[in-house]
Amino acid sequence: MGAQVETLKHLSEEYRELNGTHIEILDEPPSALEFSRLIHKSRPVVIKGYKPVNAANLWTNEYLANKLGEQEISIAVTPNGQADAVTQGPNGQLYFVEPLVEKMTMSAFLSHISEGEYHPATTDVCYLQSQNGNLFSSDYFHGNANDCPSEFEPLRSDILSEITWCSDALGRSPDAVNIWIGDSRSITSIHSDPYENIYTVIRGAKYFTLLPPTDSWSLRERSYPHAIYTRSESTADLQITPSNAPAVRWSSITEPHVPGRLPPEIQPIHVTLYPGDTLYLPVGWWHHVRQAKELTVALNWWYDAEMQGMSWVWLNFLRGSRDVPPGN
Amino acid sequence: MGAQVETLKHLSEEYRELNGTHIEILDEPPSALEFSRLIHKSRPVVIKGYKPVNAANLWTNEYLANKLGEQEISIAVTPNGQADAVTQGPNGQLYFVEPLVEKMTMSAFLSHISEGEYHPATTDVCYLQSQNGNLFSSDYFHGNANDCPSEFEPLRSDILSEITWCSDALGRSPDAVNIWIGDSRSITSIHSDPYENIYTVIRGAKYFTLLPPTDSWSLRERSYPHAIYTRSESTADLQITPSNAPAVRWSSITEPHVPGRLPPEIQPIHVTLYPGDTLYLPVGWWHHVRQAKELTVALNWWYDAEMQGMSWVWLNFLRGSRDVPPGN
Ligand SMILES: O=C(O)CCC(=O)C(=O)O
Ligand SMILES: O=C(O)CCC(=O)C(=O)O
Repeated sequence: MGAQVETLKHLSEEYRELNGTHIEILDEPPSALEFSRLIHKSRPVVIKGYKPVNAANLWTNEYLANKLGEQEISIAVTPNGQADAVTQGPNGQLYFVEPLVEKMTMSAFLSHISEGEYHPATTDVCYLQSQNGNLFSSDYFHGNANDCPSEFEPLRSDILSEITWCSDALGRSPDAVNIWIGDSRSITSIHSDPYENIYTVIRGAKYFTLLPPTDSWSLRERSYPHAIYTRSESTADLQITPSNAPAVRWSSITEPHVPGRLPPEIQPIHVTLYPGDTLYLPVGWWHHVRQAKELTVALNWWYDAEMQGMSWVWLNFLRGSRDVPPGN
Repeated sequence: MGAQVETLKHLSEEYRELNGTHIEILDEPPSALEFSRLIHKSRPVVIKGYKPVNAANLWTNEYLANKLGEQEISIAVTPNGQADAVTQGPNGQLYFVEPLVEKMTMSAFLSHISEGEYHPATTDVCYLQSQNGNLFSSDYFHGNANDCPSEFEPLRSDILSEITWCSDALGRSPDAVNIWIGDSRSITSIHSDPYENIYTVIRGAKYFTLLPPTDSWSLRERSYPHAIYTRSESTADLQITPSNAPAVRWSSITEPHVPGRLPPEIQPIHVTLYPGDTLYLPVGWWHHVRQAKELTVALNWWYDAEMQGMSWVWLNFLRGSRDVPPGN
């Protein structure tokens, strides 16, 4: 079934008329009951003064490097800071390209970032963005917590594994808790997730560009062949290597935060998070994420969204036809 | 914008696949937090053992008649028990017909019902269904409670004006609290309301036939000229009298509870409520309501639905085109 673009445009306009582009800012964390009303509204909210990390100010480079010691951590490496993004391959074709994942110590990672280059011969960009529940995974919550090692195990004791008001509001534990470390060279391309997301900044700053699910039509999703960065053994350069994985449906708008890249009626919401700021990003909301020049450390808690009722049917519908045209 | 019927049918199928026709039954009232999750799911729920009325077993005919004494109450009178329904007028045309409202004492009303006729010469049907916040109105909650008389004032002290777990979950007071008294001769035609509804039965039984908002397309809404029952001064008969009020958009399916009246893929949910049973009927759900042969007394609390976010846009969309064809 292909929902007509005219219908989708009309819904996006109605949504905009009813909701505007305002987002609420709370001065303190909500109660579970207040938060459950916010989930029902499904609008982003910024929460000030919530501290899910013990002594966050202690998370200096030195502290992080010492805590993790010789433990190897998984780092996304790309030539341009765009992990999981649509990128032109050497043959001129566009691919959805996943980063190369390399293992290194926290100390090596941090010095690569602060020295601005990686692999002496390259300007490759490193981003800690493993986002597989790198701190606490679904198994941690639902299985035997002791059987779920984490590359960041030593940091666990500094971090709340659950956001109490969110777990209580949803009646469930998170599906994944992640740490993100990078700088302005790393950018996350616009996408949406099947999760309710609590995102908090510890150091630096994050710049979110947000669009409601009703604006899905404006992002011109296309189908891109899948590729991955691999490192040439001879030159040590990163190369886009097509894979056999299925094609990926992704937005063809690479810079939604730049004025003029989206249709004029679309009004993205820009949210900057500084240390101590927490964003509630509702399921299905599109987000493009940049970060400050200085080292930026963030955490996020993903909770499975409610699948019963109407919201899932609705979110699917808003993404339009099941089969999107090829992006090339 | 006319959403294509094919699109709407497809969404209704997806919803059915994801949610089935099961509805949850709670053995005790939910906490506010639990209820707020149920609101987010937006599925009907039956709640057992909730008592929003003091000593409900005391609500005998005698008690009700004594409590209200000489107070006149507004009663809907129709020749066929169908107040607010699509009905054929004398000229063969279909109208949306509102009942005649006549004032009488509770004692007169109850004896009309139990004797099975009204106005000695007629078999007109009486239904207490004023549904304007006849117990507690929006003004009662938002203005000066003392300035809001009710025809049922003496019953107020028996009834909770708010359902605590619902008010807390929604963060607001009801918009209207109503008492309904009738018997099997009175039927409420299928419709949906812009309210979250808590509906509880005190005596008798109510038979609800429910459809989710995604099944709106199957109800074939049409536009009907508005009319009202008036009583002929000469014969005392009720007559359908066309009015100047705007045409009314209403379902053309008059008996959705009868097998075969809806498209075969539509699976209405049938819920019977006995004394002590409470139904949570979410905003936008279609309902057709019948009642037991014996006197049936019920109460309901309507709460304004959340207008922010996506659900309002979605509910509107599911009702299909703005302009429906005429029903004649
Ligand atoms: O911080 C980032 O770079 C991306 C975050 C993100 O996409 C998410 O939390 O879903
Ligand atoms: O009880 C009835 O007859 C109808 C109730 C109803 O339509 C409602 O509560 O919205």
